[in-house]
Amino acid sequence: MKIQVLLKKTSEWLNGQGPESDIVISSRIRLARNIENYPFPWRASLDIKHQIVKHVHGAVAQCGFLKDGSLTINMEDLDEIDRMFLVERHLISPELSSSPEGSSVIISKREVVSIMINEEDHIRMQVMNSGLQLFEGWKMIKDIDSELEKHINFSFSPKLGYLTVCPTNVGTGIRVSVMLHLPALVYTKQINKVLQATVKLGLAVRGLYGEGSEALGNLFQISNQATVGISEQEIIENILKVIRQVITYERNQRRYLINHSLKDVEDKVFRAYGALTHARIISSKETIGHLSTLRMGVDLGILDINYRKKVNKLMILTQPANLQKNLDRILSPAERDEERATIIRKTLKGSKGPK
Amino acid sequence: MKIQVLLKKTSEWLNGQGPESDIVISSRIRLARNIENYPFPWRASLDIKHQIVKHVHGAVAQCGFLKDGSLTINMEDLDEIDRMFLVERHLISPELSSSPEGSSVIISKREVVSIMINEEDHIRMQVMNSGLQLFEGWKMIKDIDSELEKHINFSFSPKLGYLTVCPTNVGTGIRVSVMLHLPALVYTKQINKVLQATVKLGLAVRGLYGEGSEALGNLFQISNQATVGISEQEIIENILKVIRQVITYERNQRRYLINHSLKDVEDKVFRAYGALTHARIISSKETIGHLSTLRMGVDLGILDINYRKKVNKLMILTQPANLQKNLDRILSPAERDEERATIIRKTLKGSKGPK
Repeated sequence: MKIQVLLKKTSEWLNGQGPESDIVISSRIRLARNIENYPFPWRASLDIKHQIVKHVHGAVAQCGFLKDGSLTINMEDLDEIDRMFLVERHLISPELSSSPEGSSVIISKREVVSIMINEEDHIRMQVMNSGLQLFEGWKMIKDIDSELEKHINFSFSPKLGYLTVCPTNVGTGIRVSVMLHLPALVYTKQINKVLQATVKLGLAVRGLYGEGSEALGNLFQISNQATVGISEQEIIENILKVIRQVITYERNQRRYLINHSLKDVEDKVFRAYGALTHARIISSKETIGHLSTLRMGVDLGILDINYRKKVNKLMILTQPANLQKNLDRILSPAERDEERATIIRKTLKGSKGPK
Repeated sequence: MKIQVLLKKTSEWLNGQGPESDIVISSRIRLARNIENYPFPWRASLDIKHQIVKHVHGAVAQCGFLKDGSLTINMEDLDEIDRMFLVERHLISPELSSSPEGSSVIISKREVVSIMINEEDHIRMQVMNSGLQLFEGWKMIKDIDSELEKHINFSFSPKLGYLTVCPTNVGTGIRVSVMLHLPALVYTKQINKVLQATVKLGLAVRGLYGEGSEALGNLFQISNQATVGISEQEIIENILKVIRQVITYERNQRRYLINHSLKDVEDKVFRAYGALTHARIISSKETIGHLSTLRMGVDLGILDINYRKKVNKLMILTQPANLQKNLDRILSPAERDEERATIIRKTLKGSKGPK
């Protein structure tokens, strides 16, 4: 199976590098596009969907940006675990995973770019980087979009802009999302105030796995809602302004914790480490909570910096499908909880442990 | 301060030896006695109480059984922490601790024997051994009682037997208590059924610190209620029969856990170890719960046998007054929680940790 190659490394967006990476996990920009003279995926026959896939594959093949080492995958060729594996790595959406017929995804070598074909729209392309890199992402996806536009006639209205299935995407078709780790705001119970203000400014807040998902592990995804009547540049500038404000709030609370509750936070961090290195059975949910606490420990200088990489790695490796792909076998939920505990102990062992 | 000498060792009753010591922590027998021609302590003046103390001290000095290395302590000479320290080691009752005026305690070298003077009755003598050693204890306390009786006229009614302040002690004045560690019965939720049956058989069930105390750390104290119209021998035989039954139940549940839930129990044991070796702040209550789990780990063969001694040591060392006596300073509750975590890490460190 082709996607096996992805197992060997951590996704680029989780490498823990990039600006503000003590708070910003990743920056994602995606564009929604549709192709003229084809029905939208939801009303296209399987035959038409295959034609659309072929059309887009052909266009991508003529472009330079995905030449080396990219993967072109027909979703129909994947079993459920493979598809979940890609969802967990944020390379496809849960929606694409649940309707694989006549759909496809192209993934760049370092997993920075992915292009879904026949998700809600004909094309959903995304660029995902670690840290706060919105303009860098925008430059990249703009180039990809321009190259594709040379070979594909996108559905476009001079009045409305790019046409999409859902009216919330019409216009620029852009969605800008930033994933933030906000443990101090959660710890000091300031998070709701901050998120409410964010929503009032017209932005959406979601959990780790997009719409409707819980905010596990103190991870929050902030994204734009408006896509029409405003330029991509302005959308990015607006969201950046808010993100910088949230970063400042989180930094202030972290400073407060260090000055006023260091012992409590140390206790929490070391206990999380103790639980992760000793549990024999552990759920995905508990894991992500403890990993978030370890990450906070790194950010507050309680744990050595080399833990950040391990934490990021475990964030993905401990997810159900990644776990099963790594072991190359199907596991019952109970077996997963045991294997998860084992892989966590292995990954954190060797590191000498907290002082 | 004289009682400092007790700090150097673990009380005999907590040495983890003796018959059935995988389940029975300790066996205790106490006799209540009063002296003719003195008012009961609750109606005696301080002056009279001092006379009683002097009378008993004199009698004890003439006996052979407490010759070497015993401590004679006037409760008035102790501050609150000292008194709590003795309560935590089960050498005096909480009642004696809370009214120290004109009262005293004599403690034998290995802390097996203690004789309280002017508690509820003039004399409360106890023998406490580790493991299930009721007849051994009975033999010992009978000898002490006989020796004392040579020098003291005990209040005695030919019809009722020994007279005591509370009618529940009249007759033999004996209370037989066995402290049991019953984690498997708690884990499998069979404990209430077992305890209810025990109560129906006329026995009392209490927590670690006697009447009204919670059953922390899966520790249960089973003791007789009847003291009159039945011989000491019969009382001990009756309670032994029940205790042996409870031991069988606990053993069966332990076997069941090993055969059916080993992974779950291992998880619980290792997590308890992880919490104890990583916490920076820990309450007395949480500590005792985890220590109980470690002890169960030893008993089920999950942890090395050498942990039992460490667990027993920590059971006492982590109690508030023992903690303060050991550090030789007064600690606020918050400081205690920190120092407790430190002493636990120190005690469990060095041991290589669970496999």
